[in-house]
Amino acid sequence: MDTPLFIRSKRDGLPLERQDIFQFIEDYSAGRIPDYQAAAFAMAVYFRGLDARETADLTEAMMRSGQVLDLSDLPQPKIDKHSTGGVGDKTSLVIAPAAAAGGLLVPMISGRGLGHTGGTLDKLESIPGFNTRLNLAEFRRVLAGAGCALIGQTDELAPADRKLYALRDVTATVESLPLISASIMSKKLAEGIDGLVLDVKTGSGAFMKKLEDSRQLARRMVEIGTACGKRMTALITDMNQPLGHAVGNALEVIECIETLKGRGPRDLVEVSRQLTAAMFVLGGVEQSVESACARFDSVVASGQALERFRECVTLQGGDARVLDDYSRFARAEHEESFVAWEDGYVATLEAETVGRASMLLGAGRERLDSVIDPAAGLVFEKKVGDAVRAGERICAIYANDRSRLTRVREMLRSATTISQESVKPPALILERMSGQEPAELMESENQQSEI
Amino acid sequence: MDTPLFIRSKRDGLPLERQDIFQFIEDYSAGRIPDYQAAAFAMAVYFRGLDARETADLTEAMMRSGQVLDLSDLPQPKIDKHSTGGVGDKTSLVIAPAAAAGGLLVPMISGRGLGHTGGTLDKLESIPGFNTRLNLAEFRRVLAGAGCALIGQTDELAPADRKLYALRDVTATVESLPLISASIMSKKLAEGIDGLVLDVKTGSGAFMKKLEDSRQLARRMVEIGTACGKRMTALITDMNQPLGHAVGNALEVIECIETLKGRGPRDLVEVSRQLTAAMFVLGGVEQSVESACARFDSVVASGQALERFRECVTLQGGDARVLDDYSRFARAEHEESFVAWEDGYVATLEAETVGRASMLLGAGRERLDSVIDPAAGLVFEKKVGDAVRAGERICAIYANDRSRLTRVREMLRSATTISQESVKPPALILERMSGQEPAELMESENQQSEI
Repeated sequence: MDTPLFIRSKRDGLPLERQDIFQFIEDYSAGRIPDYQAAAFAMAVYFRGLDARETADLTEAMMRSGQVLDLSDLPQPKIDKHSTGGVGDKTSLVIAPAAAAGGLLVPMISGRGLGHTGGTLDKLESIPGFNTRLNLAEFRRVLAGAGCALIGQTDELAPADRKLYALRDVTATVESLPLISASIMSKKLAEGIDGLVLDVKTGSGAFMKKLEDSRQLARRMVEIGTACGKRMTALITDMNQPLGHAVGNALEVIECIETLKGRGPRDLVEVSRQLTAAMFVLGGVEQSVESACARFDSVVASGQALERFRECVTLQGGDARVLDDYSRFARAEHEESFVAWEDGYVATLEAETVGRASMLLGAGRERLDSVIDPAAGLVFEKKVGDAVRAGERICAIYANDRSRLTRVREMLRSATTISQESVKPPALILERMSGQEPAELMESENQQSEI
Repeated sequence: MDTPLFIRSKRDGLPLERQDIFQFIEDYSAGRIPDYQAAAFAMAVYFRGLDARETADLTEAMMRSGQVLDLSDLPQPKIDKHSTGGVGDKTSLVIAPAAAAGGLLVPMISGRGLGHTGGTLDKLESIPGFNTRLNLAEFRRVLAGAGCALIGQTDELAPADRKLYALRDVTATVESLPLISASIMSKKLAEGIDGLVLDVKTGSGAFMKKLEDSRQLARRMVEIGTACGKRMTALITDMNQPLGHAVGNALEVIECIETLKGRGPRDLVEVSRQLTAAMFVLGGVEQSVESACARFDSVVASGQALERFRECVTLQGGDARVLDDYSRFARAEHEESFVAWEDGYVATLEAETVGRASMLLGAGRERLDSVIDPAAGLVFEKKVGDAVRAGERICAIYANDRSRLTRVREMLRSATTISQESVKPPALILERMSGQEPAELMESENQQSEI
């Protein structure tokens, strides 16, 4: 293909042909198109966007650059959930076993944390022995046994996305709505799913800080999935404060186990319930959100969800005794307190700063090659809306390295505001969006991205 | 340096620091910044532009990536001319010896043809033995002897520009006004000149088709040169039809020799005279354009200009007997005619199409690695404004390969229009622009490029 002409077409705002998009991805994957041409293309897309059809084509091309799982030999509806990431965002560990217990198959391929956001794989790896690096045969075996499996991206699925994402990361071309959407969706569609529930976070700790941006990202991904024949639902959920109480890997896993035991914090339970319910509806095992929520509550109350998690942990090589004995998790050497400086109501716990404080403690990655401390992190005893008295603990700080505690306290102080007037806890689920019919999609094809 | 941050700054329209621009070019030259980051940067510049100060900094950084000639041991004012290229644009071969004969030193580093435009080096190489690949020591020796020397770019001058240009060529980032300006000027400023006359072509056969675009390019280059302490003049000249009669390498050299003998075509003589006169004024050997034009006429009439060309050809290894015996040039096997199909006046000889027809005959390059046929080309006997009668020759076609003659005739037919009403020959010199004082430049620093 004439790659400079392909780049030039996008640069000049001309439509790209489906076959050229496929050829570009095929040649780039095979090393026949060099990184410098892909980088120029990505920057042109940054400025010019991709329309809905081009984004769907790019997604499909990246998906087809590797294997696409065929799970049709397993009888359950195949439904996954994907979150755009946040602070304390640990719902996957609750949702995957609960959905599996409720009759779905959940082939979940997750990522690692970077910057202020945590990653599902890092959390799982705080369970001694838990192996997230399964090959596709092993993944399939865990799925057949537990109904859910939680692994990292493999070289076999959507390799073109991995290559392009690594390039975008070093060429200032990450922040492009269509490229973000295509990247996420190409990996998810390669999982061989029938439907996907998106948890698009919005707020200070989210990738998208503004509701309108989150809405656009949700819409774009729902469009792509629908265009590729998948059932899609997106929930836009709050990420202005951490979700649940715990921020940090082992701390969050313990919170998830507590949630599966029916003792989870209100916000984590509610977001997990709504997302799992949306999966039940997409999978056709329930007809209404209300009955689907009841199914979630039922599989938690009966202990079936916890058992699915136990099976999954065991099948992935983890020490399932942690479910009953939290002392088997790594524990931090030091426990400190961050306390209220006056009486009042917690008005903000600014999530991005909390996430960065947690990262500084060792719970997150400053750079791709940073090493995670599974024991480090924060556990909030107060959340937005709660009353506090001066000297009362807002959160516990767990650290092995005390050298950064002063900075962490400063960050927590700057993240927190206390109001003299009472504060309402924020709404958790802001919006809900469903897949359009393909006919509706066609009409919106020519809308350019606004990023 | 943090290269992704540097790219991001330009992407987001933030100003770049001078030291970061220098570091970027230094690291890119040394291979510490990979091509993919430079490509993303170039595309960001395509969309965001560079302001006058950034463009001057980039130019200087690229100039300093290699040697900068120091010609201060030679007594004459060092003045060069640069053309943005066109069809039949052969003025360098007239101007360099004429300016040298008039008291200037002309260290001219030129390029090769590509697509519809010819290149000075290709033309010179139609002189048997002429060597354009001199090293800087040889270049200096020819300059000292003849007062002018005509060579190709060397690895020693502005290597960063060469590397960046090659990258832009394959990443659809050529058409950026600040990058074009910086590329041209970095090479010219490395020649160790005191002043530079720009011949910015405008019209169908030019790189810039529209007068306003040509004006912007001229202004940007004049600003850069002025910011770097050089005396600058730009002439915007017509390139809607070929300049002179001949298009093709040996054919054009013969026309230049004829011009140096005082028998050149009106338009070629006039454009050469005006450009050389501007050089005389910049070099301070004349005070007015009028007296400078008279000096041009005088060095041609006296034969001094031709003698300088003879010396230059001899010193560069060429067979100077061609000046007196044109049969020593390669000659085409076939001579054909393209004739008028009706009576009237030649209204257009659309230059780009003429250039492409000439390329098809073998006089130009379709691709960088195409081989030039020095004998092939066209010689126009009629120009825009001339009366013709049906069957009368508009141009002669010189070819060694007859297989493409049908296509060449079709192209010439589509390039030519004949009007029933009389047509005025087009103006040759459209505008003239001089260097601003640095103080004025500072005020315009924040003007963004409109490309």
